[in-house]
Amino acid sequence: MYSFLNDYNEIAHERILKAIIENNYVQTYGYGEDEFCENAKNIIKQKFECENSDIYFFMAGTQTNLTIIDYMLKSYECVIATDTAHINVHEASAIEACGHKIITVPNKNGKLLPQQIEKIYTKHLSDDHMTLPKAVYISETTELGTIYKKQELVDIYNVCKKYGLYLFVDGARLGSALTARENDIKITDLSKYSDVFYIGGTKNGAMLGEALVINNEDLKPNFVRQMKCKGSIYAKGKVQGIEFYELFKDDLYFELARHSNHMAYKIYDSLKDDYEFLEKVQSNQIFMILKNDILEELGKEFVFSKVESIDENKTSIRLVTSWATKEEEVDKLIKFLKKYI
Amino acid sequence: MYSFLNDYNEIAHERILKAIIENNYVQTYGYGEDEFCENAKNIIKQKFECENSDIYFFMAGTQTNLTIIDYMLKSYECVIATDTAHINVHEASAIEACGHKIITVPNKNGKLLPQQIEKIYTKHLSDDHMTLPKAVYISETTELGTIYKKQELVDIYNVCKKYGLYLFVDGARLGSALTARENDIKITDLSKYSDVFYIGGTKNGAMLGEALVINNEDLKPNFVRQMKCKGSIYAKGKVQGIEFYELFKDDLYFELARHSNHMAYKIYDSLKDDYEFLEKVQSNQIFMILKNDILEELGKEFVFSKVESIDENKTSIRLVTSWATKEEEVDKLIKFLKKYI
Amino acid sequence: MYSFLNDYNEIAHERILKAIIENNYVQTYGYGEDEFCENAKNIIKQKFECENSDIYFFMAGTQTNLTIIDYMLKSYECVIATDTAHINVHEASAIEACGHKIITVPNKNGKLLPQQIEKIYTKHLSDDHMTLPKAVYISETTELGTIYKKQELVDIYNVCKKYGLYLFVDGARLGSALTARENDIKITDLSKYSDVFYIGGTKNGAMLGEALVINNEDLKPNFVRQMKCKGSIYAKGKVQGIEFYELFKDDLYFELARHSNHMAYKIYDSLKDDYEFLEKVQSNQIFMILKNDILEELGKEFVFSKVESIDENKTSIRLVTSWATKEEEVDKLIKFLKKYI
Amino acid sequence: MYSFLNDYNEIAHERILKAIIENNYVQTYGYGEDEFCENAKNIIKQKFECENSDIYFFMAGTQTNLTIIDYMLKSYECVIATDTAHINVHEASAIEACGHKIITVPNKNGKLLPQQIEKIYTKHLSDDHMTLPKAVYISETTELGTIYKKQELVDIYNVCKKYGLYLFVDGARLGSALTARENDIKITDLSKYSDVFYIGGTKNGAMLGEALVINNEDLKPNFVRQMKCKGSIYAKGKVQGIEFYELFKDDLYFELARHSNHMAYKIYDSLKDDYEFLEKVQSNQIFMILKNDILEELGKEFVFSKVESIDENKTSIRLVTSWATKEEEVDKLIKFLKKYI
Repeated sequence: MYSFLNDYNEIAHERILKAIIENNYVQTYGYGEDEFCENAKNIIKQKFECENSDIYFFMAGTQTNLTIIDYMLKSYECVIATDTAHINVHEASAIEACGHKIITVPNKNGKLLPQQIEKIYTKHLSDDHMTLPKAVYISETTELGTIYKKQELVDIYNVCKKYGLYLFVDGARLGSALTARENDIKITDLSKYSDVFYIGGTKNGAMLGEALVINNEDLKPNFVRQMKCKGSIYAKGKVQGIEFYELFKDDLYFELARHSNHMAYKIYDSLKDDYEFLEKVQSNQIFMILKNDILEELGKEFVFSKVESIDENKTSIRLVTSWATKEEEVDKLIKFLKKYI
Repeated sequence: MYSFLNDYNEIAHERILKAIIENNYVQTYGYGEDEFCENAKNIIKQKFECENSDIYFFMAGTQTNLTIIDYMLKSYECVIATDTAHINVHEASAIEACGHKIITVPNKNGKLLPQQIEKIYTKHLSDDHMTLPKAVYISETTELGTIYKKQELVDIYNVCKKYGLYLFVDGARLGSALTARENDIKITDLSKYSDVFYIGGTKNGAMLGEALVINNEDLKPNFVRQMKCKGSIYAKGKVQGIEFYELFKDDLYFELARHSNHMAYKIYDSLKDDYEFLEKVQSNQIFMILKNDILEELGKEFVFSKVESIDENKTSIRLVTSWATKEEEVDKLIKFLKKYI
Repeated sequence: MYSFLNDYNEIAHERILKAIIENNYVQTYGYGEDEFCENAKNIIKQKFECENSDIYFFMAGTQTNLTIIDYMLKSYECVIATDTAHINVHEASAIEACGHKIITVPNKNGKLLPQQIEKIYTKHLSDDHMTLPKAVYISETTELGTIYKKQELVDIYNVCKKYGLYLFVDGARLGSALTARENDIKITDLSKYSDVFYIGGTKNGAMLGEALVINNEDLKPNFVRQMKCKGSIYAKGKVQGIEFYELFKDDLYFELARHSNHMAYKIYDSLKDDYEFLEKVQSNQIFMILKNDILEELGKEFVFSKVESIDENKTSIRLVTSWATKEEEVDKLIKFLKKYI
Repeated sequence: MYSFLNDYNEIAHERILKAIIENNYVQTYGYGEDEFCENAKNIIKQKFECENSDIYFFMAGTQTNLTIIDYMLKSYECVIATDTAHINVHEASAIEACGHKIITVPNKNGKLLPQQIEKIYTKHLSDDHMTLPKAVYISETTELGTIYKKQELVDIYNVCKKYGLYLFVDGARLGSALTARENDIKITDLSKYSDVFYIGGTKNGAMLGEALVINNEDLKPNFVRQMKCKGSIYAKGKVQGIEFYELFKDDLYFELARHSNHMAYKIYDSLKDDYEFLEKVQSNQIFMILKNDILEELGKEFVFSKVESIDENKTSIRLVTSWATKEEEVDKLIKFLKKYI
């Protein structure tokens, strides 16, 4: 059975594994303080045009999120996010376990609106017995696979600056967002319109790794200690350095993301007239609704996840394509679902 | 310059990298719920004779420590450890950041004594305004490279059971301890005489990985959620499964540790009559004292770490050997230091 | 100007102050370990028929809430509450600062429904990456001044028991609830249908004080240490003992609450046909909607709080009556508002 | 039996209770935002010459300590204190439960030395895997009843400023310190040589209350929210306002402290040639060593606390005098102990 379960079904792109092996016996200092990481940081600074940003490598998204969000907030402060935000739904209260509240608002196609931020902020500012918003969390792509348009990002950033809030962009699938066919955000916009963002590697060809880019000076001092305090420092940190250098030195990162999107678009474009989708497919996540009997048959040939029961006859599912998705399997999937039209 | 800085200067043993590459495209479910992890758990259960234990894979020691210690303690409870304990000195207050106090006692050759546990426990039990000990943390090998004898471990375990304390053994260098020439603890003793312990992979040939073995039933429920909550779950968790299976399927783990110790013993045995050592060398960490001028010369040929200034003329240093240490470099080091006798 | 701002505008009922003065020089041990507290606990156990419960005195609601909720939850666990819950809205993220997530559901007239608990629990149980509900928080009276009927309480308690959840009843205004004209919950029901509840004194005649009643054995061990750890132990803890003994020795507590309700009902019954109320008035909190010009005039004669703007012409306000509310001032208020009909 | 157990055996000075009763029915806004608190803050600012400081009232020391220390520190930062510090020994890990490590050093007569701060700071600064000191905690009087001389305080403050550390002075017994016969610290020095300090009321005649004085601008923003978040806000906050105004309006606070010290000095001066004392008595706490048979007899006439067993024949005890201590009971105690010389 071929799996569309996630974009981390396979381990890593071959070039990354090859680079790890080639450098296996190069002795370095541990914990990411080595030349591989230095090179990776430099190539990222160049590509994202963020010469003055600080960059740190993590091994997973939840860890990245809790480490930076904990750094941003005092005990009485909180972060604003959508109800569907990964930090709210799928991190087993990791943010709260660090002592911080998430204030949620209803998502609009997975996205947060500047007006929502403004309303929450002003309401909470007026009452000293309420938690005080200090940060905003958005995901790009969103948890529903949608993407922010440039103006939406800029508007959110501006409302954050107006009220002294930090804007943090969770880029677990940033590659997919930046190479989406409807995208108008430039790579170099991220460092302009956020205080901190991360470039997801794990879901785009790396074995393990997320690169956190800190643009705001306030969030820089002693950040290594914050990482250590949160268990986010690794003896073999150089592995991430090797990975990210490989991903960005000649734009492999974007090439892989483009493939991933292309596979999703092929499915969507082939089926959108005949099937119902929860959201328009903009990136490598496909949320579609199937009749339960079709779903059962599909489950015999492909692996995917059920999202929730829509009614007694229908269920929503998620299909994810990736850098490793084989086009022939995509074709099979399309063919399979075409049968039921 | 050859490095004796640490046992994680190189990435991983070749067999491990080979196994990763071979399984690169095997699609699995993420987050360690795959057959590679299943196989690794089974081989560990077999080797350590702990069929009923629960096993989880982590990527680093601090993360492992904070995840299990946070699980063991309520807000008013604390963990007892030596003053040199890794959790006390080198984890940037990671345990406290999870909300828990560490009560420290002076180490005896890096080790904790059962009488110290008893004294601390009874003192704190008597006063409701004091924190209440609920767990004990020891490292095997210790932070000073020494090892516990079996009777010492058993005595500590017994005092823990007497007072209802959890005993947690940090085995970042467990391989080195279990293959030490003076060791009398059997592999199968760990699951008998601790509530939970971990088998360090990162410092013994794995790329990244520690295997936590939970023996006590009280520490098992919902542990996956605890890991997720602490950012210790990885999309490519299967990598650790591949690593640990490879390490234990035919005892590569112990073979590597034996080599590591052997290299350290060679240095110690060659120099112990002529140099001063902070502790007798029992495992792969060597703490020796050098005159500052020798130290300066040594630093031109080898990489190592300074521990602290002893007086104005002498400094203590740490040399670490590993699975990857080349014997010819050990010989060079010995020869170098012999010159100054 | 007379104030209907809150039920803690005045300090304390005279009998309480008198009892404090009379016992001023009685030397006792500190921190609530004295005979005054002993007597108060005994009278509460007798009145609430909870001989086997443990009772502790706090000085404020937020402190009580955070101390018991922190005790109930592990890091990955959470508490379910309504969106209007005091712990969610008006405690400056005190629960989250202790490391715990609150999952909220839309309130129904300020109340939580058993079906909501069931739905949240089963959804979260199914996914290991989600926080796990372990406790339920309800307020009696609710934050909107409504009360639970006995069957509603029993149904919530039963669903909690079905899923192993602790039910915690915040009784900041419990006196008002138990003496409400529509109430059918007996005083002795609280210890039967909750795992822990507190009896609010601060808002019902005490100077400062809440009595936490722990019914569930699991929540009893070392609770004094938990209180100390959370800063909830007081040198002069005996003051609360004196207060609660005075409040319950001859049912002053209920007498004061009845007066408080009676004052609110008088307002509601006099105005309900002519004014709009957010909720039916069941206890001592009145939420009504006023035209802005009336509101402005009312603000010249009385103190109260605005809740929120309904539209550009209307605003909702909150009036609170108390043990100290003077009937003549209530009459003035009614007369004042009658003018605008 | 007369009690020398503590300085909070009795409730409050009569003038304070009288003031509470007189203002019982004055309606005010809650949570310390009332004119009584305003007046109290003004009188404190005047007496301590700290016009620009922010002042907040708490109800107990542990609560005060955890609220301000949590505000001062990020997750990876820590506070330096002596091993005998109240926050380290007698607060049930309240500081750690807020997520912060305490680094302790051996006390010198209960006091912290500037060199100790310097040594700890520089050691920790050099290693990114260590917690980073950001605050220093001292108690005045110390937990052993000793006092800092002005130069000692100034030297500590200067080393703090050199390294960017906040100096927090726990003044649970500040009255006793400032009126000690050997004291040379002026009332007005506290706001000059600390970033924040608190004036203890609970142990010096108030029913309940500590006044926190924040001198450093960095520690001021949104402090009310921090208090709410930590459960340190009280509906009847005005009670503390009434108390502190009464204590300072005509220096009752210092008068009571002087009496307290005077009683301790009388005991010490009468017995110091014939009994052994753990520390020279400088304030209202007396630590003396008794033979066990004398101790047993003394325990039949007076209440006091045992500190620890010195050897099999001797035990150290603590006697505390207070604002309420009767001189005739002091005389009886002296007479009693004189018998055994």
